[in-house]
Amino acid sequence: MINIGIFGATGYTGVETIRLLQRHGHARLAFAHSDSNAGLRLSDVIACPYDVPLIKADDAPLDKVDVVFSCLPHGPSAELCARVLKAGKKVVDFSADFRLRDVAVYEATYKHTHPHPGLIADAVYGLPELYRADIGAADLVANPGCYPTSVVLGALPLIESGALADPVIIADSKSGVSGAGRKPSQSTHFVEVSENLAPYNVGNIHRHVPEINQTLNEVDGGRSPGGVNVIFTPHLLPINRGMLSALYFRLTPEAARIDWQAAFTNRFEGEPFVKVLPRGQTATIAHVARTNLCVLSVHPMGGALGDRLLVVSCIDNLTKGASGQALQSMNLMFGLDETEGLL
Amino acid sequence: MINIGIFGATGYTGVETIRLLQRHGHARLAFAHSDSNAGLRLSDVIACPYDVPLIKADDAPLDKVDVVFSCLPHGPSAELCARVLKAGKKVVDFSADFRLRDVAVYEATYKHTHPHPGLIADAVYGLPELYRADIGAADLVANPGCYPTSVVLGALPLIESGALADPVIIADSKSGVSGAGRKPSQSTHFVEVSENLAPYNVGNIHRHVPEINQTLNEVDGGRSPGGVNVIFTPHLLPINRGMLSALYFRLTPEAARIDWQAAFTNRFEGEPFVKVLPRGQTATIAHVARTNLCVLSVHPMGGALGDRLLVVSCIDNLTKGASGQALQSMNLMFGLDETEGLL
Amino acid sequence: MINIGIFGATGYTGVETIRLLQRHGHARLAFAHSDSNAGLRLSDVIACPYDVPLIKADDAPLDKVDVVFSCLPHGPSAELCARVLKAGKKVVDFSADFRLRDVAVYEATYKHTHPHPGLIADAVYGLPELYRADIGAADLVANPGCYPTSVVLGALPLIESGALADPVIIADSKSGVSGAGRKPSQSTHFVEVSENLAPYNVGNIHRHVPEINQTLNEVDGGRSPGGVNVIFTPHLLPINRGMLSALYFRLTPEAARIDWQAAFTNRFEGEPFVKVLPRGQTATIAHVARTNLCVLSVHPMGGALGDRLLVVSCIDNLTKGASGQALQSMNLMFGLDETEGLL
Amino acid sequence: MINIGIFGATGYTGVETIRLLQRHGHARLAFAHSDSNAGLRLSDVIACPYDVPLIKADDAPLDKVDVVFSCLPHGPSAELCARVLKAGKKVVDFSADFRLRDVAVYEATYKHTHPHPGLIADAVYGLPELYRADIGAADLVANPGCYPTSVVLGALPLIESGALADPVIIADSKSGVSGAGRKPSQSTHFVEVSENLAPYNVGNIHRHVPEINQTLNEVDGGRSPGGVNVIFTPHLLPINRGMLSALYFRLTPEAARIDWQAAFTNRFEGEPFVKVLPRGQTATIAHVARTNLCVLSVHPMGGALGDRLLVVSCIDNLTKGASGQALQSMNLMFGLDETEGLL
Repeated sequence: MINIGIFGATGYTGVETIRLLQRHGHARLAFAHSDSNAGLRLSDVIACPYDVPLIKADDAPLDKVDVVFSCLPHGPSAELCARVLKAGKKVVDFSADFRLRDVAVYEATYKHTHPHPGLIADAVYGLPELYRADIGAADLVANPGCYPTSVVLGALPLIESGALADPVIIADSKSGVSGAGRKPSQSTHFVEVSENLAPYNVGNIHRHVPEINQTLNEVDGGRSPGGVNVIFTPHLLPINRGMLSALYFRLTPEAARIDWQAAFTNRFEGEPFVKVLPRGQTATIAHVARTNLCVLSVHPMGGALGDRLLVVSCIDNLTKGASGQALQSMNLMFGLDETEGLL
Repeated sequence: MINIGIFGATGYTGVETIRLLQRHGHARLAFAHSDSNAGLRLSDVIACPYDVPLIKADDAPLDKVDVVFSCLPHGPSAELCARVLKAGKKVVDFSADFRLRDVAVYEATYKHTHPHPGLIADAVYGLPELYRADIGAADLVANPGCYPTSVVLGALPLIESGALADPVIIADSKSGVSGAGRKPSQSTHFVEVSENLAPYNVGNIHRHVPEINQTLNEVDGGRSPGGVNVIFTPHLLPINRGMLSALYFRLTPEAARIDWQAAFTNRFEGEPFVKVLPRGQTATIAHVARTNLCVLSVHPMGGALGDRLLVVSCIDNLTKGASGQALQSMNLMFGLDETEGLL
Repeated sequence: MINIGIFGATGYTGVETIRLLQRHGHARLAFAHSDSNAGLRLSDVIACPYDVPLIKADDAPLDKVDVVFSCLPHGPSAELCARVLKAGKKVVDFSADFRLRDVAVYEATYKHTHPHPGLIADAVYGLPELYRADIGAADLVANPGCYPTSVVLGALPLIESGALADPVIIADSKSGVSGAGRKPSQSTHFVEVSENLAPYNVGNIHRHVPEINQTLNEVDGGRSPGGVNVIFTPHLLPINRGMLSALYFRLTPEAARIDWQAAFTNRFEGEPFVKVLPRGQTATIAHVARTNLCVLSVHPMGGALGDRLLVVSCIDNLTKGASGQALQSMNLMFGLDETEGLL
Repeated sequence: MINIGIFGATGYTGVETIRLLQRHGHARLAFAHSDSNAGLRLSDVIACPYDVPLIKADDAPLDKVDVVFSCLPHGPSAELCARVLKAGKKVVDFSADFRLRDVAVYEATYKHTHPHPGLIADAVYGLPELYRADIGAADLVANPGCYPTSVVLGALPLIESGALADPVIIADSKSGVSGAGRKPSQSTHFVEVSENLAPYNVGNIHRHVPEINQTLNEVDGGRSPGGVNVIFTPHLLPINRGMLSALYFRLTPEAARIDWQAAFTNRFEGEPFVKVLPRGQTATIAHVARTNLCVLSVHPMGGALGDRLLVVSCIDNLTKGASGQALQSMNLMFGLDETEGLL
């Protein structure tokens, strides 16, 4: 039985991890941390069925766990990861602290000095569909962002095949509000969100842009002159959870002749958590709600637009976009069945 | 043309007042105050079509207005009202500061010392269906709370008729989130509200209980031994605006023989903003959204429960429950058609 | 391993049952029936992760299952139950066909002739908190309605104690839209439901009234003169799933002196799926979403209203209100751990 | 006073027209038609404050009106328009029957024979920002589709300037559910829409594609080799009303040097219902809800993506996307102030 400690347990990803652990046959929650709510139970803080006691960081028994899930914000999370690694334990970091391999890009994006740049090289980016073996051998896994997960999985077969005539990908993404975190703000007030749809961080300034580009270019391997670039427009949807990315591609003449429905199906055959819908069906958020699935649908434009392709990619931002993917990585890190607790 | 100054214009009731003023033929917005957003326009602060400049309290030209609408919180609102009255202008107070006639009840309910208890006697409770003439002559109108408006209008014909065998009224009320104000908090976070229904301040501890009881007992005129008492349970609904109260009554044997459908229809005949639905229809929030209407439906239980009556009372909490009712009172205060700008 | 066949699998309760079965260690889905969608997979019909094939009734292999879950409408469901029992198999009936013990009440309520009145006496009402032992021995379980489950569990300790001064209980209930079924209608159109709250079947005419009264009076055992009567007002909430009942009671002088917080806690101690919240907390739908829990909170009014009590009772209408409770009964029918697959 | 008759008054665009007419100073509702609800009042059929009687088509007094608004479906709407024109009256057609100038394209798109192809040449496309003068002189106005309105207004300044390096425009559009009409269907069931986002008619097969392309190419005037083509992906949003289109453009090197913020502001200066947000603000649906505004925001990508531009275009699908635009056209047709009843 793997023992898991969670830091920052009262955020949405913390609660989601606790929910998923109810059904995990080989892992259990050892402790749940929340400095601001220490002494209370989780169900006192958030309406939920989990009567888990909450403890201070200083009281967290690191020696009694096999792995820590850090749901702390970037910055403090890197500090915690360093401390956990030093204690000889594994860690899955939900923050962005170890996702970007270039510390300069990290510091320009997150506007603060990285507290442990020396650990970046040890971190593995926790996207099993790309880095399964590395994750299995890792002590420090950087759990991917939700938007990057949805965009990268939907673009993967095309970039691996060198199919793009234009290395600029348009990703029009829409996310449920839980992606913005549990801390109240004007932009997450019910009345501002409901009956509305609000694009935000438009003009390619969202922090996930460098993360998406890093992975896509690693897959591209330098083939595209100037590199692959995403144009990324996130929108806040009036729903609690779920994320949909509409991805627009322009193909080379050769690629325009490929049956991408078949190619996507082949690429993800055997992947336990990527599902390509049958021809003629369209991915929606309802396909993935509260599951660890990424559901894709593939839509050639046809006619005069035969070189244009649309891929719709859906995940649950809290599951495949956060806590589920973290458990998937943890299963790999400890040699368990990758799907344990996630079906 | 009546000139109106609004203090606290960036809250939901301020914006609603500005919306309604677009269509008012005999009143116009003279200034809109918001200390924290002075220098900006309303449309910079809240997504809306109103490019109204916002000014500091110190810059508000009281001499250029005929009436002030105070959308400030209780406490500061009383201070402003005193200042406006001293300047010789009329004022409609959206806060609770002048609603309760007994200063001790006010101070026990709102937990602070009333800054201007001497003005309470001058204030008129702004429910036109009960106090139309007094409002017309008033300089200071205490705009009723949204819950009290919905409960009192639904109970009025029964209490006026002395119909209650049990002077305890059960009011099970449900409100949209705009009633909680625009300031972000955990309880108004989209994810906490959506896909949820949450009763709050249960056990009769909501601040509107004394306000409801005060008005009902004034109508009752001391007939009920021990007085009329409401059991009031508010719920937070996952909608932006609108309020529904289900009111349960136990009738005297004589009252149980009355046709209350007809009695309600007669009582409110000629009232421009109270509508009793035809027999067999049920009031819903959709009947009143963005209108100044209170829509009522009357439901005798029949059979073995022939002495029990349900009344459903719906208003829009921002219109008849706040800004619309304030404009209705202002129309009366200045001798205008009561419905001007509100149809 | 228990083999389960589901009839009417494409409705919301069918899909919910299939969802819950994913995690059940000792039962599995043997077949899923839908005449109108036979030949398709469930995921072709409804956006969900379940690629279950759908078959016609005539192709359903009754001999290969241990138990049938009937999610058919009342009428056809009774026909199916008779057929299954004749084949020597057990059945859990989600419809109302075997809930009411008096066939005349059934026929007056559901407006058609009962096709198998002779089976009514054999049916056990599937509320484990009241009829656990009988369910364990039953071949035919009548799965309770969602509203009756929420009302009865919240009223149980009071009626068992003979605490009511007035045997009329007010139940102001609010339900998510999935309770209305998956068939489209004007009243379930998104635009009619969203930003609205609509009471329906007001005036005590909802079909669940006789079901609630039957159970409450069985518990009361004839102590209340004239019997216990519920005044029941259902409302349609703009949410997908979840149900909240606010229950209002008037207590005898002796009962008014009891600590009902403690009494409720004691009554449900050991019940795996009934949770009484700590004093001061209020039950909300978020406490129970997608769980088999009934969460209760107890609220004495105090002061001049010391003989009045409010109980808030929440369930998920599709889980404890339908599919979860059915699995709970099935676990009992086959001697399994009652909580298997439901935690 | 202009007298207006509405056919198909119980649909969402009919009710919206009636709502807007409440505030119109120079037009009034003469009759409202609904064959299926004749004899009832509008408020009996749909929860709303309008007690308008509904009449059969045969009882509609065409001689007493100046103009007819046809909210009938395509096909029957063309028949009605012909009848109204023959009676010497003007008509605004909300259906698609007279929007497409090429009858072959119409018949391929709408899959039926056009009943009155001879009238197509007389119809004016009712987009005042492009065809103001023609509308003023028209007897038959084809009210534009909601999606075409949002896409065309957002693309107009770019196409007029010949700014596109790639004549393929990506329009990722999201609409509230009222755009799907009031007739219930599985896809508009509350439970299928809520907590979901569903793209539909993907792969450029939506009926509005030819309508968008027709207008854009008329503006382009044949400059783009192969013509302008939209890639159009509509999504169903879980909101009642409102529409947002994210429009992606690739610019010529010269166009990439233009200040498009300034260019858009200039282009729409003086337009009463198009508002370009200040630099740095982003258009959202909340900016336009229940108004006749189209609100635009302009977002150059910058950096390595200096030749890419995003425009966000928002309208209320029932107002500027239907009933409001129809009234705007009617104001022009009768020489009234274009904004009458719409501010």
